[in-house]
Amino acid sequence: MRILIVGGVAGGMSAAARARRRDENAEIIVFERGDHPSFANCGLPYYVSGEIDDESSLLVQTPDSLKDALDIDVRIRHEVIAVDAAAQTVDVRHDGTVTTWTYDALVLAPGASAVRPPIPGIDSPRIQTLRTVGDAARMRDEVEAGATRAVVLGAGFIGLEAAEGLRMRGLTVDVVESAPHVLPPLENEQASLIQDELRAMGITLHTGVAATAVESGPEHDTVVLADGTRIDADIVVLSVGVRPDTAVFEAAGIACERGAMIVDEHGRTSLENVWAVGDATVSTDSVTGLRRPVALAGPANRAGRLVADHIADPTTARPIPQPVGTAIVRVGGLTAALTGANRAALDQAGIDYRTVHLHPGSHAGYFPGAEQIHLLMHVRADDGLILGAQAVGADGVDKRIDVLATAIRNRMTGPDLIDLDLAYAPPFGSAKDPVNLAGMIAENVVNGSLNLWYADEYGTGDHLILDVRGPAEQDADPVPGALCIPHVQVRDRLDEIRDAAAGREVRVLCASGMRSYLAYRILRAAGIPAANLSGGLLTLRAAESIRPLQTV
Amino acid sequence: MRILIVGGVAGGMSAAARARRRDENAEIIVFERGDHPSFANCGLPYYVSGEIDDESSLLVQTPDSLKDALDIDVRIRHEVIAVDAAAQTVDVRHDGTVTTWTYDALVLAPGASAVRPPIPGIDSPRIQTLRTVGDAARMRDEVEAGATRAVVLGAGFIGLEAAEGLRMRGLTVDVVESAPHVLPPLENEQASLIQDELRAMGITLHTGVAATAVESGPEHDTVVLADGTRIDADIVVLSVGVRPDTAVFEAAGIACERGAMIVDEHGRTSLENVWAVGDATVSTDSVTGLRRPVALAGPANRAGRLVADHIADPTTARPIPQPVGTAIVRVGGLTAALTGANRAALDQAGIDYRTVHLHPGSHAGYFPGAEQIHLLMHVRADDGLILGAQAVGADGVDKRIDVLATAIRNRMTGPDLIDLDLAYAPPFGSAKDPVNLAGMIAENVVNGSLNLWYADEYGTGDHLILDVRGPAEQDADPVPGALCIPHVQVRDRLDEIRDAAAGREVRVLCASGMRSYLAYRILRAAGIPAANLSGGLLTLRAAESIRPLQTV
Repeated sequence: MRILIVGGVAGGMSAAARARRRDENAEIIVFERGDHPSFANCGLPYYVSGEIDDESSLLVQTPDSLKDALDIDVRIRHEVIAVDAAAQTVDVRHDGTVTTWTYDALVLAPGASAVRPPIPGIDSPRIQTLRTVGDAARMRDEVEAGATRAVVLGAGFIGLEAAEGLRMRGLTVDVVESAPHVLPPLENEQASLIQDELRAMGITLHTGVAATAVESGPEHDTVVLADGTRIDADIVVLSVGVRPDTAVFEAAGIACERGAMIVDEHGRTSLENVWAVGDATVSTDSVTGLRRPVALAGPANRAGRLVADHIADPTTARPIPQPVGTAIVRVGGLTAALTGANRAALDQAGIDYRTVHLHPGSHAGYFPGAEQIHLLMHVRADDGLILGAQAVGADGVDKRIDVLATAIRNRMTGPDLIDLDLAYAPPFGSAKDPVNLAGMIAENVVNGSLNLWYADEYGTGDHLILDVRGPAEQDADPVPGALCIPHVQVRDRLDEIRDAAAGREVRVLCASGMRSYLAYRILRAAGIPAANLSGGLLTLRAAESIRPLQTV
Repeated sequence: MRILIVGGVAGGMSAAARARRRDENAEIIVFERGDHPSFANCGLPYYVSGEIDDESSLLVQTPDSLKDALDIDVRIRHEVIAVDAAAQTVDVRHDGTVTTWTYDALVLAPGASAVRPPIPGIDSPRIQTLRTVGDAARMRDEVEAGATRAVVLGAGFIGLEAAEGLRMRGLTVDVVESAPHVLPPLENEQASLIQDELRAMGITLHTGVAATAVESGPEHDTVVLADGTRIDADIVVLSVGVRPDTAVFEAAGIACERGAMIVDEHGRTSLENVWAVGDATVSTDSVTGLRRPVALAGPANRAGRLVADHIADPTTARPIPQPVGTAIVRVGGLTAALTGANRAALDQAGIDYRTVHLHPGSHAGYFPGAEQIHLLMHVRADDGLILGAQAVGADGVDKRIDVLATAIRNRMTGPDLIDLDLAYAPPFGSAKDPVNLAGMIAENVVNGSLNLWYADEYGTGDHLILDVRGPAEQDADPVPGALCIPHVQVRDRLDEIRDAAAGREVRVLCASGMRSYLAYRILRAAGIPAANLSGGLLTLRAAESIRPLQTV
C-alpha cells in the first residue's frame, strides 16, 4: 500500500501521521513544495514581532524527525505538477527533474495561495506575503536592516497580526481594508472595539477604501488608495485573501467549485482513490449550509486524520464534520473571537434571527481584575437555535467562544445555555457566567417576554426614547431627544412616561441594557408598549463608529 | 400574590429578583437570618487574603438597593422558626419578637451550616467558620491584630482558599484533612499536583489524619491529631463540610432525605405552595443518578430563577436541570477544576468506565508562555460517553473544563470531542486543542485500537515494562526493571523486545504517553501484545505521591 500525500503542513501532515498509526506497513510519501513540512504557519506573525525569537521553534517537525518517529518519507521542494487518475500516478518536479510515482491512495492538501489584486505595481519586490517561514524570515530581516514604514493590505486575521508585529518592532504601520471595517467577519459593533485598540497602538487605519496602485521608487514604494491617499512604505504586506491552489488537480479532472475541490463526507474527490483536505476543498457550513472553502488549521487537521481513517478502513471511518468556523485573534490587549455564522452569512442564507448583546465581566465584579466582555449571539427567531456568537475583550473571550462553539456543534438553543454548569470561583467567572446570561436574554427574546430594539434602528420611526441611566452618565454622554428618568424612579413616574409617549412605543436604553431591562419590565407590566436597546449605549456607540446612525 | 422567601443569598435572591421581573405586582418579602442579603460568599477567602480590600465590595446588593431596583422587601436578621403549611403561614423571629406572615408561595433557600465534628474542644472561641461577611471580617481583624499561626481543618475548596489567604498574610498554616489527599473530589494524580503547590507556598499538610481534640490555652489553642501531632494555633478554621439547615422545615412536614429537602423538577417540596432551592435540597446527579445536596452557587441561582418562573406560570416553566457538578479553585499559581463524576462516584454508581490522561500545553508550544495542563477524562467503557473530567495547571484549565462541562450536558462521547471547532491562534490554543486530543485518545480506547494500563497497576502481574524515553530522561528518573529503548529505535529493535517479553504483555511508558503510544502502535502491528501507560510517568509519579505503588 503506497499513500502519496501532496502538501506537508496541516491537513496533509495530519493525514500522514494518522495513516502511519493506522497502518505500520504502508509506504507513506509526502511531497511538500516548500522548504519545510509541518511548520507553524499560524506562528509567522509572532516571529516577525519577535515574540517568537528562534526561527527553529517554527519548525515543529523536520523530515528527519518525521522519518524517525513515524517512518514517513517527506520530500521538500517537490512539486506535484500532474495527476493521471487512470494510471494512478503523479508527476513530481524537484530540482528541474520530473519523476512519476504510482499510488494506491492519493491525498491532496495543497492549501491556498495569496490573492494578488490586479493593480498596477502589484509585482513590486517590496510587496510580500506572510505564508512561509521564508516569508517571515525575510520580513524580519528587513525590519532588522532598518525598514521603518509598513503598509498592510487587508485587515483580516493574518493582516492584523502582521500589522501588530511590525508595529511592535517600531515601524509606522498603515492598514488598508476595502471592507467598511477591519476583521470583516466581525459585526460592526465588535470590529469597532478592535479598531480603537489598533489606533491606540499607533496603527493608522484606512477602511472602506481599496489600494489602486503601488508605485516603486528606488528608496521605497508608495501605496496609492482610491481616495487619493499616498502612503510610503519600505514593506508592503499583501494579505487580502487566499485562493485554493488547485489548477493541477482541476486539470486532472477533479470536480471543483469556484476553484476549490469538491469532496464528500469522507474527503473523497470525484476521482477514485483520490482524497482532498484543507483550504483547497469546499466545505458546507454547519450552521447556514452555505458552501465555501474554510481556511482554518483545526478543520484541516481533523479532515486529514479522518481521511487517513477512511483509507485504512472505509467501513468504520467517521464522516468529516461540517465546520462551525471558529476563529480568534489577539489584537494588542484585546482578543476578538467568533464562532458560527455572522449577520452577512445569515442574511445570505435567508435565516430569520435575533441578536442579543451583553457586556458582562470576565469574572466576579468584586474580585480584582475583571474585564468587560463584549458578547453578542445570534439565535434563530422561531426556536432560539444558536447560530453564531462573537466576543471582544481583554480576558475570558476564548473561553466563552469555545463554550459557544461547543453549544453550536450540539445544536443547543439560547435557553439551553442557562442550564450549563460552568466552573465558578471569583477569579474565573461568575455564578451566572456570561454564557448563562446570554442564554437568559435569548430565552426572554424567544418567548416574547423581551422585545429588543437595535442600534441601527436609532433615529428611525416615531418613538419615545427613555434613558434610564443616572444623571452623571446622562450628562457625560447625552442622548438627544431622550426622556431621562433613572431606572429606580421609573415605578413612581409611570404617568410622566405615559404622557410623554402619547401612545408611541417607548424605546428604553441604559449603558449596557441591564437597568433598561428592569425599566422595560415595569413599562410592560403597566401596559405601555416598550422595547429595550440590545447591548445599551455601549453597543450603539460602537456600531455608530463604523456606520454613522441616523440623527433623531 | 405574596411570595415569601427564606434566605437571601444565592438561590433565594435569584428567586426574588426573577419573581419581580415576572410579576410587577407581587408582594415579595425575603427573610434573611444573617446581616446581609446577596453577599459575595465565594469572595470571603479573598477578603481574608487582602486581594479583595474593601469589605463593602462583598456586599453585592443591600436591602436599599434591592428595594429601589426591584421593589423587594428584604428583612435581615429575620429568622423563620416555624412553617404552618395548612394555614400557609410562617413565624419569623426578629429582635426577640415573633410575627406571623401569610404567603401564597413560599420559597425555602436556607442553605447549609458548617459541620462541627464531635471532638473535645470544638467549641473553642478560636475555632471559626468562613461562611459570612462577619466571619471574614473577624478573621481579617485577628490577622491584623497579630495572629501568626493558623490551622485549617478540612482541605476542601473553601478550606484551601482560606489556607492560602492566611498564608498570603504571612501566617504559618497547617492544613488537616482526614481523606488521603487535599480536595477529596479530585483523583489522586490530580490532587498530588495541588499538594506540591501548597507545600511550595510554605503550607504544611497533614493528610489521612483527623483532628481528635482542640485544647484551649490562654495564649493559643493546640490542635491534636490522631497521630499525636500537636499544632499551636491562634486561629482554627473549621471547614470540614456542611449540613443542610432544614430542621425547621423538616419539623413542618417537608419530606427530607438525610436532612436535605426533597424537591421535584420544578423545585416543589412535599408541601403545597412550598418550593425549595440550593444547598438544602437534594439533587440527582446528571451523570451518575446519585442523589445528594449540591453546594454550588450556579445551580442554586439557576434553581431560584426557575422556581420563580414556576410560581409565575407553572404551564411554561422549564424543569430545573440535574447538576453536572462543575467546580474550580485557584491554589497558588495553579488552577484545579473538575466536572461530572469522579472515580468514587462512578464506582458507587456501578458504571464501567475508562480513564484517559494527557498533559498538553495550554497553547501552541512554539508560542511563549505555554503551560502544561494535566487533564484526565472518564468515559463510559462501552460507548465512550463522557462521564467526568478534571484538569490542573497554571493556564487554560477553566476553559477546557467549561468546554467539557458543556459536552457532558449534551451527552457527547469522547470521540465527539474530536469534531469540536475550538478557537485557535497561537496565544490561545493549538490546532488540536487539549479537548480534541482527549477525544482522540478516548476514540482509540473505545474502539479498541488503544489498550491502556494505569499507574495503579504498576508492579502487578507479570509484564515487560518498556521505557521508550530518551537516555537522559531514563537516567534522571529510572524505572526499575524496565527495558529501555528510545521510541525512534523501536521499529529496528522489535526482535529484542519480543525476546525480552517472552510472550508477556509489553507495558510501554514514556513521560506523558505520546511517544509510548507511537511505540505501542508499532508493537501492535508486529503482533506483540502491548499496553500504553495512561498519562505516562507524569501521571504515575503524581499518583504514587499520594498512594505508594507496588514495587516491581
